[in-house]
Amino acid sequence: MPNLTGQDEREEISHAIPYPTIRRMPAYHRYLKGLQSDGLAMVSCTRIAESLDLEPIQVRKDLAMTGTVGRPRIGYPVDALIGAIETVLGWDRWSEAFLVGAGNLGSAILGYRAFKAIGLNIVAAFDIDPRRVGKMIHDVPVLAMEKLANLARRMKIRIGVITVPAEAAEDAAKALVRGGIEAIWNFSPLALTGLHVGKDVIIENVSLASSLAVLIRRLGQTKAAQP
Amino acid sequence: MPNLTGQDEREEISHAIPYPTIRRMPAYHRYLKGLQSDGLAMVSCTRIAESLDLEPIQVRKDLAMTGTVGRPRIGYPVDALIGAIETVLGWDRWSEAFLVGAGNLGSAILGYRAFKAIGLNIVAAFDIDPRRVGKMIHDVPVLAMEKLANLARRMKIRIGVITVPAEAAEDAAKALVRGGIEAIWNFSPLALTGLHVGKDVIIENVSLASSLAVLIRRLGQTKAAQP
Repeated sequence: MPNLTGQDEREEISHAIPYPTIRRMPAYHRYLKGLQSDGLAMVSCTRIAESLDLEPIQVRKDLAMTGTVGRPRIGYPVDALIGAIETVLGWDRWSEAFLVGAGNLGSAILGYRAFKAIGLNIVAAFDIDPRRVGKMIHDVPVLAMEKLANLARRMKIRIGVITVPAEAAEDAAKALVRGGIEAIWNFSPLALTGLHVGKDVIIENVSLASSLAVLIRRLGQTKAAQP
Repeated sequence: MPNLTGQDEREEISHAIPYPTIRRMPAYHRYLKGLQSDGLAMVSCTRIAESLDLEPIQVRKDLAMTGTVGRPRIGYPVDALIGAIETVLGWDRWSEAFLVGAGNLGSAILGYRAFKAIGLNIVAAFDIDPRRVGKMIHDVPVLAMEKLANLARRMKIRIGVITVPAEAAEDAAKALVRGGIEAIWNFSPLALTGLHVGKDVIIENVSLASSLAVLIRRLGQTKAAQP
């Protein structure tokens, strides 16, 4: 349940798959890939639910959204279900992205090979620090911020990843939007809103502070409950 | 709204501050600190709501949970509100933590100075790779996994941060729990559940894959809506 921005769940577009379902899809995918490599062809809803600590009814509803139907006493075909989830998540094709902020966090994200498996291909990084410009980080070139907008438009990049400190986040977001970027994945501690970049830009704020706040709060409650 | 695990919101302990409110608190804090450094003494609910793109009624409810009350036509006292939020979030004291996995992501998190400002102090890192053991990363020592459990018990560490690959996450979690750790902040792609570590352990899964899945899905819907 960690809701990393603290905003309420978005209104969903009618007939679209609900976002909570989308959020659970990567866990289903990971689990099914494990079964696949163990050579399993079919899996029951109950088994998936138990392994992922979810309710069976929830699993059945979620998986129905992919168009793959389980059969009573037989279950779901593992290969077909993996393919259906990859289609739903867009993992069957890569989305190219630019990253702004080639510091510690940016470097870690550039080196996080797992992103390529889940559809994100960061093709260039940008930084205001001239000492970083010109370097390669995990095979991705670091370029000067001035080049961002032109290059983004030329390459038709639609996704921007922000890994700068809070005080630089708004400028980074605006630079991305000037380049025609339509969606921002924001790792900076500043929660970006439509006020910063316009209402049309899709924003996913990954607020680590919110996640940590809940963890520490829950820990405090445990302590209080066990004097 | 990004809910990074895709599970349903936890049941709240009665009389506790709701988790969605806790998740919004870091954003209020960041905004108020900005006002404070601009020398502002009072701020209205409406202004906070506008700046953070929230509903005023939501802001009023959230801030009431801190025990600080706004006065009509005058607003909230900025300094007092900051202090009240820090108390609610436990940011007025540090929680010491151990980190498992001193690779790219682990190093980035060790170098992320912002965590210290929000109550987390990572005092040691652990890794199975002997080439990493013995090093210092951002002034934090990297130690051998075998030392974790004993040291955690001796230092009464309660929080563990996991930054290992998916296939190593369960082992890392179990090692932390053997050391008496009560809460796990999990950055690995494997969503940990009570099945891995026991129902008593508090788990916050930061599922970047879920967050990215929603971003890419929303982008796809925009494209579909604008043929």
